[in-house]
Amino acid sequence: MSGPAPVSSDGDSALAIVCGGGSLPFALADAATRRGRRVVLLALRGWADPQRVDAYPHHWAWAGQLSRMMRFAIADGCRDVAFIGSVTRPSLWQIRPDFRVLRMMPQLFQLYRGGDDHLQAGIGRIIEQYGFRLVGPTEIAPELAVPRGLLAGHAPNERDRADIALGLALLRATSPFDIGQAVVVAENQVLAVEGPEGTDRAIARVAELRRNGRVRSPAGTGVLIKSPKAGQDHRIDLPAIGPPTVEAASAAGLAGIAVVAGSTIVAEPERIAAVADRAKLFVVGVDPDETQR
Amino acid sequence: MSGPAPVSSDGDSALAIVCGGGSLPFALADAATRRGRRVVLLALRGWADPQRVDAYPHHWAWAGQLSRMMRFAIADGCRDVAFIGSVTRPSLWQIRPDFRVLRMMPQLFQLYRGGDDHLQAGIGRIIEQYGFRLVGPTEIAPELAVPRGLLAGHAPNERDRADIALGLALLRATSPFDIGQAVVVAENQVLAVEGPEGTDRAIARVAELRRNGRVRSPAGTGVLIKSPKAGQDHRIDLPAIGPPTVEAASAAGLAGIAVVAGSTIVAEPERIAAVADRAKLFVVGVDPDETQR
Repeated sequence: MSGPAPVSSDGDSALAIVCGGGSLPFALADAATRRGRRVVLLALRGWADPQRVDAYPHHWAWAGQLSRMMRFAIADGCRDVAFIGSVTRPSLWQIRPDFRVLRMMPQLFQLYRGGDDHLQAGIGRIIEQYGFRLVGPTEIAPELAVPRGLLAGHAPNERDRADIALGLALLRATSPFDIGQAVVVAENQVLAVEGPEGTDRAIARVAELRRNGRVRSPAGTGVLIKSPKAGQDHRIDLPAIGPPTVEAASAAGLAGIAVVAGSTIVAEPERIAAVADRAKLFVVGVDPDETQR
Repeated sequence: MSGPAPVSSDGDSALAIVCGGGSLPFALADAATRRGRRVVLLALRGWADPQRVDAYPHHWAWAGQLSRMMRFAIADGCRDVAFIGSVTRPSLWQIRPDFRVLRMMPQLFQLYRGGDDHLQAGIGRIIEQYGFRLVGPTEIAPELAVPRGLLAGHAPNERDRADIALGLALLRATSPFDIGQAVVVAENQVLAVEGPEGTDRAIARVAELRRNGRVRSPAGTGVLIKSPKAGQDHRIDLPAIGPPTVEAASAAGLAGIAVVAGSTIVAEPERIAAVADRAKLFVVGVDPDETQR
């Protein structure tokens, strides 16, 4: 595939940030700016928040307009491109593919038919074929990654730690199947495995199971466990948590949230901590191979 | 634990059938009757269908009244006990435990806190401690098991067979975690993993994901795959399918249903076949280690 020749990356060039929904794109933009980097937001129509995008140098594009985005990035002197923010799997009919994307349609279509991993790996390859360097949010701003240890609330008790270990083991087992990145486990019983519906809907299911008396573990027990899939491209799709995750977990009566430290991102750690403390939930960063101790 | 001494089982003694919901208990009772066995239904209040129970010799009991049920079984000369029919995980407060069950509460409570496997294994042990033989529905009536091959509809095409193989592999991977017995896979993407909400709700999720455009595989693709968990006690909890399963699959736009042959039970194969044919869905019995060919 043709395109500009690869350029060497340097930390001082401008950074193009392809922005999905939520607060994460702005947290990344601010973190890069604090480091003295110039940023340009490539805001995805339908996902990025227009009011917040306005506060930064930016261009708008449809998700399928990769050529347009890359032209903007080149014109603005960017060498590095980052992807961040939530993007629910878009409809092929809504992304307004440009000519280059259209030419690649058969290839993209193939990717599209598999799980998310396939789609994301394909996008990463395309960006690199344009001559850009694809950089992960945590390469630019390590402080966006949840650190190991307690972020909010009381330390998980023994029962919680057993639930966390079971959840991590289950996520390891399902990892090759390119499905969700989250499970809910309460008192040794798996209550939900996330599918394409997303984490918040999977947690909502637990709230409903508890209302209906279909599961017996009482409110105040159970942990949401999130982990990246094995082989997942950390530059494109890291699991993220935000205040809505904490609120959903609270509504489901969970004891807390455990995420894999270093590879889960959070836009506003202080806000998460405040919401979790108020809801009496713990939020903890754990090792991916954590077992019950 | 004390109780009557174990008695040797013989195929001519009366069969006690602990009946949950649905048509399966009556299909089993009829099958045993056809073989010349006397049957006594021990109907679980809240689950068994009162009108249909009336047509057979029967006693009613709450799910927690094991002693009462076993006394009925002894009085009626039963040596074999079978469990069949749907029982959603009951609330401990609704099963009206009798004295013997109450004494075992701490032990049962422990079982209860794990997944279904623990609970069922515990119930099996208790029945045997009473001196009865616990018999599986398919031991009594092999015709209740879905046979290998096509039960309804057109043969699965290559894409369907790939989805079935992926689903079976995923179920093998999740099997040690004592979660659901069903997954939905469409065009190589996992759309749902069943949790305690049950198969029909998991399928309903797929219908919703399709309505919302969160998944792209078109209507007419996708397979519901059901398999017993590894180590599951086939005498107590075999996966079952019925007309509602087919109707849910049809509403979700699936191509068909694949179940593990020999260890999935069906009350009325002809009715399933008729409903599936009308909905243009296939229903197929497969080997548990079926891979794409």
